[in-house]
Parts: sequence; structure tokens; C-alpha cells
Amino acid sequence: MKTLKIPEATIIRLSVYSRHLTDVDRKGIITTSSGEIADGVGVSPAQVRKDLAYFGEFGTRGVGYNVKDLRQHIMRILGLGVDWSVTLVGVGNLGLALSTYKGFRDRGFVITSIFDADPKKIGTKIENIEVLPIEQLETVVKQNSTQIGIVAVPASVAQETVDKLIKAGVSAILNFAPVVLNVPPEIELRNVDLAVNLEVLTFNVCGQRCY
Amino acid sequence: MKTLKIPEATIIRLSVYSRHLTDVDRKGIITTSSGEIADGVGVSPAQVRKDLAYFGEFGTRGVGYNVKDLRQHIMRILGLGVDWSVTLVGVGNLGLALSTYKGFRDRGFVITSIFDADPKKIGTKIENIEVLPIEQLETVVKQNSTQIGIVAVPASVAQETVDKLIKAGVSAILNFAPVVLNVPPEIELRNVDLAVNLEVLTFNVCGQRCY
Repeated sequence: MKTLKIPEATIIRLSVYSRHLTDVDRKGIITTSSGEIADGVGVSPAQVRKDLAYFGEFGTRGVGYNVKDLRQHIMRILGLGVDWSVTLVGVGNLGLALSTYKGFRDRGFVITSIFDADPKKIGTKIENIEVLPIEQLETVVKQNSTQIGIVAVPASVAQETVDKLIKAGVSAILNFAPVVLNVPPEIELRNVDLAVNLEVLTFNVCGQRCY
Repeated sequence: MKTLKIPEATIIRLSVYSRHLTDVDRKGIITTSSGEIADGVGVSPAQVRKDLAYFGEFGTRGVGYNVKDLRQHIMRILGLGVDWSVTLVGVGNLGLALSTYKGFRDRGFVITSIFDADPKKIGTKIENIEVLPIEQLETVVKQNSTQIGIVAVPASVAQETVDKLIKAGVSAILNFAPVVLNVPPEIELRNVDLAVNLEVLTFNVCGQRCY
């Protein structure tokens, strides 16, 4: 089914729908509709139906969707049916913030190892995980069969960090360093630029005044 | 022109195009094409043309786009023709990371005030800005005509923080607290959920295996 090119915006909305369905499920609600989901997350009902249609038939016409089933189905689509082992490289301010970010664990992303190059940080513990020297990255990441690496190091050492992660066997990298990284085509790389979020806001604030 | 509903994905891509054009301009390149932009950022040339078409006619058929002009035009569309005064509330790990994040300043987002409730943090300086007590938020934000508030406080105090920001006159809020916030319709609110980025990765890693 993945031969159809699925827009990234659809994936992001699926992630939002699944969070909404988690809340709805917690309230004990059994069935829902594309209209209710749309209201809950702020998109149109047609958008909800279109996003779900990429992945087959859900729900029953006139009855709607079973909340638990739809949530579970979306979670599986997103690859969240299992826990993922995540390694974090770099415990500056951002790395520290990420290491204690509750939102990861809630969605099945379990940080299993943390690395830094600073001798003052090595040996300290963050949420019961010992910060290890970068030299141990390859061995430990292989041992844990870790698939995801989060890069929160300075831009100047981001490429060598990514190279080490790939050598250690990770298949996906989330990069917070403000630098363009080279990875082989089989590696999934996502760059997070926090300023983009502000730009969506300023675009909306500006309205017609700005252009 | 803004009467046309512009997809958020388009705004995010415009932000990406403008960064790419900044790099291209720095290399001294004068003209470019939708094909070159597409290659540079990893989308299709048709997507680039479609995104730009929302905002009128750019470039010359057969010649392409003037790099500087197109960059400036996109920056203006995004509301980045001017500097924005930004206030940051909360200097835990995430707030500290945001306060020193170079990517904001580069795009015209200038943090002009920082607030926290912790007496140990009040009076300390971050990048030459003194951390002020939350009680001074309204006065200082009004004084600076600050339009954007970044919320990096614990979820339990996020709503009261947002209420204070709105009372002080901000028109846009970027929220990192993992909680649903209520704001009046005239306020632009954007919630950042860092786990969504990991979910786009796991979706791509999974391929057909996951669903």
C-alpha cells in the first residue's frame, strides 16, 4: 500500500488524530465520527476521511469509527505498535530537555542510552541512565539494537556523530543541529528547525499586511 | 490574496525554500529555477511552483527566478521583513535551550525578555538578558510591544502563563507545554510536540511492515 506517495502532512495529522483518540478513549467514549475528530483537532471532516483513506477502509457508514480500533490502527500505521529504542547524543541544554521529555515515552520512544564528549558529564545520571563517552556509542547502540538516534550536539560535530550512529546500525536520525547532514539514502533523516514554528505564526499574524 | 486558504504545509515549505535561497545567495548565484530549488530541498518542481503560485507570479518563463528577489519575497510573505520581539517564559532545560537557539535570531526573532517563577533563576542573565519575575511580565511585554510569547513552563501553569501573555498584548504564542490551551480566536497559537518528528521517522522506517 506504501507505493502510494503519502504526504508528510497526512502523517503529521495522523499523529494528531491518534493523540485526540487517546483522549477520547480515556473519557470512555466508544464510537466517533470524522466530524467529531475534525472538530477535536481543528481540520475539516473531508480532510480526516481523505487522510484515513490512504490506508484502506475504516469505520462503518452511518455508525462511525470504533475509537479504540481506529486509534490502534493509526498507531500501527505510524509504527507505534512497539517500543522503539532511542539513543541521545549530546546533553547540552537541548539534550537535557529532550532526555526528560515525557512526550517521547508516552508514544513508545524509550531512551536507552545517552552519550556526550564532555568528561564532566560522563558518568552523571539522567533519569537513571548513565551518560557514556562517545567512544562507547558503537558498541552500546549495537548491543541495544537501537534504531533511532537523536542528535543534539553542536553543528561542528553533527556529521561525525551521524556517521557514528549509522555505523552503529541506527536506521533513523532526528537532528537538532542547524547544519545540512549527508546520509545514505536508506537512512531516514529528519531535521528539526524550531524557528519554522515561529514562522507559521508570523505568517498567520501578518495576514495581508505583510505581502 | 489571503482569502485563499493556504495549507500549512505550504507555509512550512516556503520557510524551507527561503533557507535554501539564503544558502544559494551566499554562494553568489544570481538566478535559479523551480527544478534547482526542488533538488535543493527534496520536493518536486511542480510542488515548488504550486506553493509559489498562491502568492502571485514570480520569475520569468525560460529564465527562472532571481535568487535575491525570490528570497526577499518569500521572507515578506512569512512576515520576516521585520524583526519580531519575542518573550520567553520558563527557563528550565528547554527554556534555556530556546534562549540560546541561534536559529531564532537568524530569522529575525529577537528575545527581548525572559521570565521565570523560580527565585533562584530571577536576576541571573542569559545572553545578556536578565531573568525577571513573572509578576513583571505584563508591564515589560507591553513596554517592548512584544508580539510573540514562547511558553516553556510546566503544563500545570501553562494556561495561566498564556492568559498573562494575552493580557499583556501578545498576538502569537508558541507553546511547548504538553497541554491543550484555551485562547481567544484572534490569538495565533501553535503547539510544538517534539514526538511528532519521531513518528514521521518511524512511519518511514516501517514501510509496509507496520500496517
